[in-house]
Amino acid sequence: MDSHRFDAEVYVRRLAVAAAATAAAGLTGLVISPGYDLRYLVGSRAQTFERFTALVLPAAGEPTVVVPRLERASLYASAVMELGLAVRDWVDGEDPYRLVSDALGGAPAATAVTDSMPALHLLPLTSVLDVLPVLATDILRGLRMVKETAEIDALRKAGAAIDRVHARVPEFLVPGRTEAEVAADIAEAIVAEGHSEVAFVIVGSGPHGADPHHEYSDRELRVGDIVVVDIGGAYAPGYHSDSTRTYSIGEPNDDVVQQYSVLQRAQRAAFEAVRPGVTAEQVDAAARDVLAEVGLAEYFVHRTGHGIGLSVHEEPYIVAGNDLPLAAGMAFSVEPGIYFPGRWGARIEDIVVVTEDGAFSVNNRPHELIVVPVVSSGLAR
Amino acid sequence: MDSHRFDAEVYVRRLAVAAAATAAAGLTGLVISPGYDLRYLVGSRAQTFERFTALVLPAAGEPTVVVPRLERASLYASAVMELGLAVRDWVDGEDPYRLVSDALGGAPAATAVTDSMPALHLLPLTSVLDVLPVLATDILRGLRMVKETAEIDALRKAGAAIDRVHARVPEFLVPGRTEAEVAADIAEAIVAEGHSEVAFVIVGSGPHGADPHHEYSDRELRVGDIVVVDIGGAYAPGYHSDSTRTYSIGEPNDDVVQQYSVLQRAQRAAFEAVRPGVTAEQVDAAARDVLAEVGLAEYFVHRTGHGIGLSVHEEPYIVAGNDLPLAAGMAFSVEPGIYFPGRWGARIEDIVVVTEDGAFSVNNRPHELIVVPVVSSGLAR
Repeated sequence: MDSHRFDAEVYVRRLAVAAAATAAAGLTGLVISPGYDLRYLVGSRAQTFERFTALVLPAAGEPTVVVPRLERASLYASAVMELGLAVRDWVDGEDPYRLVSDALGGAPAATAVTDSMPALHLLPLTSVLDVLPVLATDILRGLRMVKETAEIDALRKAGAAIDRVHARVPEFLVPGRTEAEVAADIAEAIVAEGHSEVAFVIVGSGPHGADPHHEYSDRELRVGDIVVVDIGGAYAPGYHSDSTRTYSIGEPNDDVVQQYSVLQRAQRAAFEAVRPGVTAEQVDAAARDVLAEVGLAEYFVHRTGHGIGLSVHEEPYIVAGNDLPLAAGMAFSVEPGIYFPGRWGARIEDIVVVTEDGAFSVNNRPHELIVVPVVSSGLAR
Repeated sequence: MDSHRFDAEVYVRRLAVAAAATAAAGLTGLVISPGYDLRYLVGSRAQTFERFTALVLPAAGEPTVVVPRLERASLYASAVMELGLAVRDWVDGEDPYRLVSDALGGAPAATAVTDSMPALHLLPLTSVLDVLPVLATDILRGLRMVKETAEIDALRKAGAAIDRVHARVPEFLVPGRTEAEVAADIAEAIVAEGHSEVAFVIVGSGPHGADPHHEYSDRELRVGDIVVVDIGGAYAPGYHSDSTRTYSIGEPNDDVVQQYSVLQRAQRAAFEAVRPGVTAEQVDAAARDVLAEVGLAEYFVHRTGHGIGLSVHEEPYIVAGNDLPLAAGMAFSVEPGIYFPGRWGARIEDIVVVTEDGAFSVNNRPHELIVVPVVSSGLAR
């Protein structure tokens, strides 16, 4: 098996289910240009932009891959050849959108397109198809959200790998070092612990921890800092880890201890709410309610979680307004946080997988605020 | 000056010209989500996907930036704050497309969108605006294609930097080393010679040189290989180099020498054809005609060139069917190649800039096939 994809039989099944969902939605077909949906459906990591490449999957009939002749070789690493899909190549000067129309039968066609298809291709495609497409997310959601056994296995391995990185984080958190230096050590550890690539590294120390979207900076760590460390990478064949722990450099003050303990209860409450049939927004509310009880709700400024798989952020989103019922096999983050602008912040994040009667976490590091002991140089123990 | 962008006055002028072009096209406004157009217009390197961010530039009236509140900080590195643009932020649950509509006056609006806007945003935006957008490329083409003095200066510096890398390439091309090893040395040299990042590295040895889209592999270099080396990087504030030279490990045979000399004449003919008023396709034809005279036209399987600037590939494209007249300030590659499948290939590429009465090249390494002497180990000279 190519380590970037599963065996071909996985894609045979996914294509069949996707075609059936397309038919059920009353559409003529799917048009999937490079991105996560293409990777999901045929194991292709192609990343073209300027020249149009797409999998055309009719609701009934054989799939066709439209590809620039010069980039035909990019298909060899995917399952396209092994699956024996029809390939229609094109050269500069030809109209690739017409090939899509042909593959769908030639008449005006109601299609769904992958959410990453750029306007550069979507607008001329719309002209040829004569009907404004809809988003394929709606068609593929049920398929991509519910992970197969092999996908869950990959998420577990990714989770164990990022846990090993978090186990090493305290040694990196030395007062006087910058967030950027710590981030560089973490990035190296992410790869050393088995990921194929680094996806993101957030080291938010002191007031920076109060900005959930802070990455890292030249700020030097100080004794007394609370540090949010939110990290993840891709693990073969491309599934992601994503875990946050919060560290205290030296002993935290009582205020931090008390508020952190509420956050820990909020994260636990959200996790315990997860089971089939519960809605995404109920999980979000479970975390939010615990914080609200002690007046901390206004400091939790983002949703509780996001789905994860081939992409770091995907459905299901664990957010108010999402009444999607959870189902066994769904995988997403549970990551409430509290943020006090200009002062400090904290977040606890695990990736959890819904089971038949509850959920398990792929991350298993302790949830407590991790106190990094400060060794004063020059003072012997 | 932030090294990632120009002074604010550059963007003031660009926004004014873009608004005028939008009015001239009879459109209500431009909607520019993250990508090269956004970087060009306001110096923003934002790279959001899931949550909608956009510059809304009405044909008449003040520009507005729509941004998720959580990502508002991403605007600080751009010129948006210095320019005093209106910023409308939004939080999860709100409809950001409605904010675009508001910024355009609220009625159904004929807009142009940046070519990288993903379907995820383009389709709901279309619903709110009630009119299918067109591509902003058509509006911004005249602006982005004709480089300002500061842009040409950046392209010159990038060109000189990649020339210094090519000067070092022969020392990397040692028989027995793999293309990947050579590519790693080149990537390091691209940064060492002043680029801020590596854009691409192609090392196509022997039969791999016959595939114009080959990157690099574990193939080991051998005496007698012809090696295509096509490399480039970004140079502050983000302009690209892109230059190809072809190398011979040891003396080439007569066949190679003869065919390469025709390629060299073809590249020269295309360069000499460049001047204001000549069309892009005439430059393409100038190269192709030289190859056709000796029956080599069929081995030149791609266009002659592409524009370059903030992106590696942009307009103008130097290709059959493009009757765009060239104008002073345009910058593009002139890169004919010949490809003999399974055997060898060659390409010569410079970035050239159109002047008032001709053109100059930002690359100035010799065009000859560069023979890398082979030192037999164990045999004293």
